[in-house]
Amino acid sequence: MLSTMQDIPLTVSRILRHGSTIHGSSQVITWTGDGAPHRRSFAEVGARAGRLAHALRDELGVRGDQRIATLMWNNAVHLEAYLAVPAMGAVLHTLNLRLPADQLTFIVNHAADRVILVDGSLLPLLAPLLPALDSVDHVVVSGPGDRSVLDGCRPRVHDHEELIAGRPAAYPWPELDEREAAALCYTSGTTGDPKGVAYSHRSIYLHSMQANSGESFATTPHDITLPVVPMFHVNAWGLPHAAFLSGTSLLMPDRFLQPAPLAEMIESERPTVAAAVPTIWQGLLEELASGGRDVSSLRAVVIGGSACPPALMRDFEEIHGVRVLHAWGMTETSPIGSIAHPPAGLTAEEEWPYRLTQGRFLSSVEARLAGPGGDVLPWDGKSTGELEVRGPWIAGAYYGGADGEPFRPEDKFSPDGWLRTGDVGTISPDGYLTLTDRAKDVIKSGGEWISSVELENALMAHPDVAEAAVVAVPDERWGERPLASVVLREGASADLAGLKSFLAERVARWQLPERWSLIEAVPKTSVGKFDKKVLRRRYADGELEVSEV
Amino acid sequence: MLSTMQDIPLTVSRILRHGSTIHGSSQVITWTGDGAPHRRSFAEVGARAGRLAHALRDELGVRGDQRIATLMWNNAVHLEAYLAVPAMGAVLHTLNLRLPADQLTFIVNHAADRVILVDGSLLPLLAPLLPALDSVDHVVVSGPGDRSVLDGCRPRVHDHEELIAGRPAAYPWPELDEREAAALCYTSGTTGDPKGVAYSHRSIYLHSMQANSGESFATTPHDITLPVVPMFHVNAWGLPHAAFLSGTSLLMPDRFLQPAPLAEMIESERPTVAAAVPTIWQGLLEELASGGRDVSSLRAVVIGGSACPPALMRDFEEIHGVRVLHAWGMTETSPIGSIAHPPAGLTAEEEWPYRLTQGRFLSSVEARLAGPGGDVLPWDGKSTGELEVRGPWIAGAYYGGADGEPFRPEDKFSPDGWLRTGDVGTISPDGYLTLTDRAKDVIKSGGEWISSVELENALMAHPDVAEAAVVAVPDERWGERPLASVVLREGASADLAGLKSFLAERVARWQLPERWSLIEAVPKTSVGKFDKKVLRRRYADGELEVSEV
Repeated sequence: MLSTMQDIPLTVSRILRHGSTIHGSSQVITWTGDGAPHRRSFAEVGARAGRLAHALRDELGVRGDQRIATLMWNNAVHLEAYLAVPAMGAVLHTLNLRLPADQLTFIVNHAADRVILVDGSLLPLLAPLLPALDSVDHVVVSGPGDRSVLDGCRPRVHDHEELIAGRPAAYPWPELDEREAAALCYTSGTTGDPKGVAYSHRSIYLHSMQANSGESFATTPHDITLPVVPMFHVNAWGLPHAAFLSGTSLLMPDRFLQPAPLAEMIESERPTVAAAVPTIWQGLLEELASGGRDVSSLRAVVIGGSACPPALMRDFEEIHGVRVLHAWGMTETSPIGSIAHPPAGLTAEEEWPYRLTQGRFLSSVEARLAGPGGDVLPWDGKSTGELEVRGPWIAGAYYGGADGEPFRPEDKFSPDGWLRTGDVGTISPDGYLTLTDRAKDVIKSGGEWISSVELENALMAHPDVAEAAVVAVPDERWGERPLASVVLREGASADLAGLKSFLAERVARWQLPERWSLIEAVPKTSVGKFDKKVLRRRYADGELEVSEV
Repeated sequence: MLSTMQDIPLTVSRILRHGSTIHGSSQVITWTGDGAPHRRSFAEVGARAGRLAHALRDELGVRGDQRIATLMWNNAVHLEAYLAVPAMGAVLHTLNLRLPADQLTFIVNHAADRVILVDGSLLPLLAPLLPALDSVDHVVVSGPGDRSVLDGCRPRVHDHEELIAGRPAAYPWPELDEREAAALCYTSGTTGDPKGVAYSHRSIYLHSMQANSGESFATTPHDITLPVVPMFHVNAWGLPHAAFLSGTSLLMPDRFLQPAPLAEMIESERPTVAAAVPTIWQGLLEELASGGRDVSSLRAVVIGGSACPPALMRDFEEIHGVRVLHAWGMTETSPIGSIAHPPAGLTAEEEWPYRLTQGRFLSSVEARLAGPGGDVLPWDGKSTGELEVRGPWIAGAYYGGADGEPFRPEDKFSPDGWLRTGDVGTISPDGYLTLTDRAKDVIKSGGEWISSVELENALMAHPDVAEAAVVAVPDERWGERPLASVVLREGASADLAGLKSFLAERVARWQLPERWSLIEAVPKTSVGKFDKKVLRRRYADGELEVSEV
């Protein structure tokens, strides 16, 4: 029996309409670094989005679902593109300006972007790439920056303000199928080519509703959100769309992501909610220790992207009265999957164990743990498996490019369609996720999983150990066994047998490594993470001196 | 270009799953009137919903989209039916126990209900109707009440607890199309047969997400919601579904809707959010004045259903520290359409004019005003028109019955599919709705609309006037003109010319009635509202003594 309700699609044009009318007086404040932040009302953003859509259609000939790329910082003009491009039926492709040049070139060509909207300050990054970007017909430059670097380039070059000037603010936003693609974001995978996730109008709308709910951030027009996380990174965790839907004002940091300007903009504009990766907050914390800025306007600081050091969370709360909220997600999950709000009825101290987890799954996000044999594990807080998720804002495939079909690599999607997150951990009976490792780093030993991270943490608790990395190595009997590579502190006296005894008191017997290696330093990736690939290769190549202990 | 996101339907089974797992420790507290409220966790509610679904399918043979009716107060068992019936693919039909017997019979037959779940306390209401309820095969009785009144009835009679006992808690909830009907609620229209609105899984899910958002009530597991508004009335304004989705505990008043038990349950169970029509709150306010109960746990009291007297709002806030939140909606809007949260940046006193409106439209609810000629009017706070709304939880038709097509009466739906609400008012530039009249009571005079309510309020401000009702009467020149019927206070000396002069200082000249009538009392409906039909008929029949003034 069909319902009698209206069949109204959930589209970005409705986010645009609601924010720019009902919440027309809410503000987008873009930091300029010159002491005079740029302010624009949601009503103006809506009008300028209409003008941009007219310019793209009428002047640049954008049609249908063509891809419009942005190479921009977090600012009001970027927000206008966020709304206008999907609302007109085109697809917004946010370019991660931190990708290496070859990957940027790959993703622009793979998406077949026709237009690139770019901040003037980023032209030195874009200009050298242009000769290899065959699909790009137009470059639209916004804000200050030396345009001469584009002289002689093949695409037509436009000034953003000149392009939209004088065009109508009202645009006949088409009624779209909510399952059509609205925005495209490529993962910056460390192996293989970047893979594109095509968010739908529906997924963006539902994710925005969730972000505005009490289970998430409960933002209202009385709030100001500061997305430090870039708009080219999973849509700034969905916060700009969510803010426009709820009338929450936005403080946009533009390119001023250093601790000093962040502290200054928080003190002067008084945002209530902010979001960034832990390194940003670590830097801000150090800045605050010296600078004496007031950040007490923040009622919630959302941290995600990687595990947050507990000391950082405590310091923010105890020194600055700012509550840190741990969240988990990834490009493929739009990204918000879980948030570490504690359960009701606890004291502040009892809340900590919950707040240090990756959080409780949000409504609309279903989770399960897949064990070593693919079996579904219980939520008992002990069984360790790979996290798999399902839901209306979770990817079910990757974008195949203009001429390709969507593709579903086996290591990323289960046969019944759940996303394999590559994250390994436990889920408590009340639904709190604790991640312990990445699936690729777990040691699969005789049908059980051993967390490399847990062994490393236990080892690094030894006073003589400076660093320790544990990787899986092949083993005839068990399939895989852990190899512990240890960096001793200068002048340390511990030997490997002593370290093994130390470890034996802290982990289960069957998890104890038999293979040990003393090394000079743990190899690191460009962003400072342990590069376990290198250790595994060195072991395979016989380059490590390994002792059986 | 299709997105790469998973296509996961928004279904009641997902609300059930999320609430009973992630929020399994949240509570449903049902008031019993005996000092020992009944407590049940969301996990237990989920398990019992599974058992109920098994009983309905395996024992009663419920299949497909058959309708399962409830004749119940707000309690935990009703909540279990709310979740189980739609989740298994059947359709929940909530019976309004305040409807006259003939209308109850009509709607059960129109919906072709196969099963009725009934509170034992309501058996005296149900038993006399059963002989005329041809489609009903089973009656399932829950809680205390004399079962003997059902002796000899045609349907099979079951005890709820016996029926579900021993059945599995896990049920294989089917994956449904989110546009399928989940729940059916009939309007209690004063004219014609009741009309059924069939809510979809999608509309219930989206409405729940909205109710949990910062734009609405921002409820979390730290809250307890008290829905005084009945679960047979527009799904208790959607609050039970919303609470289960967000893990908000529920305080269910069952049949204890009188001021004294309400005050007692609020004091002892400390709900944070409550919802009811103004008369309930008026009664509670009077009870509080005498009883000295503490209701300070309430952070928001939601009032809807009819306009709330400003004095009531002020008293709740100033005497009891409880903030009253005005909302607008109707059966056809699920029902939440607008909520009177004031804009940001105002003082408490500046907020009042906003809080006294019917509120600001929520995201996903689009609104427009249709003028006397059908033209769309501006949001200028002055232009008066009929409110029309559109959105994913707004009805686009009425249920046609088991063998009928959905139907769309012209006076209820515009040709382009918007719902004609029958409410007349203005919308301010920032989207606040102020209702001034019902469309059927507005006087359509020469292409302009005159609000009967505004004239009545102006007249009733005269010290000699006890009551005044204004209705439209036919006029050769203007189409319609207002007729003012006035009830004078005992011993009052005012004459009609004096009243007209009084009115002339308060309303525009062209709105002034020429026709006046002194009457003994304004005719009232069964619920105490002015019955303007009667006045119009009396005028048409020449039964009123009318003066031209």
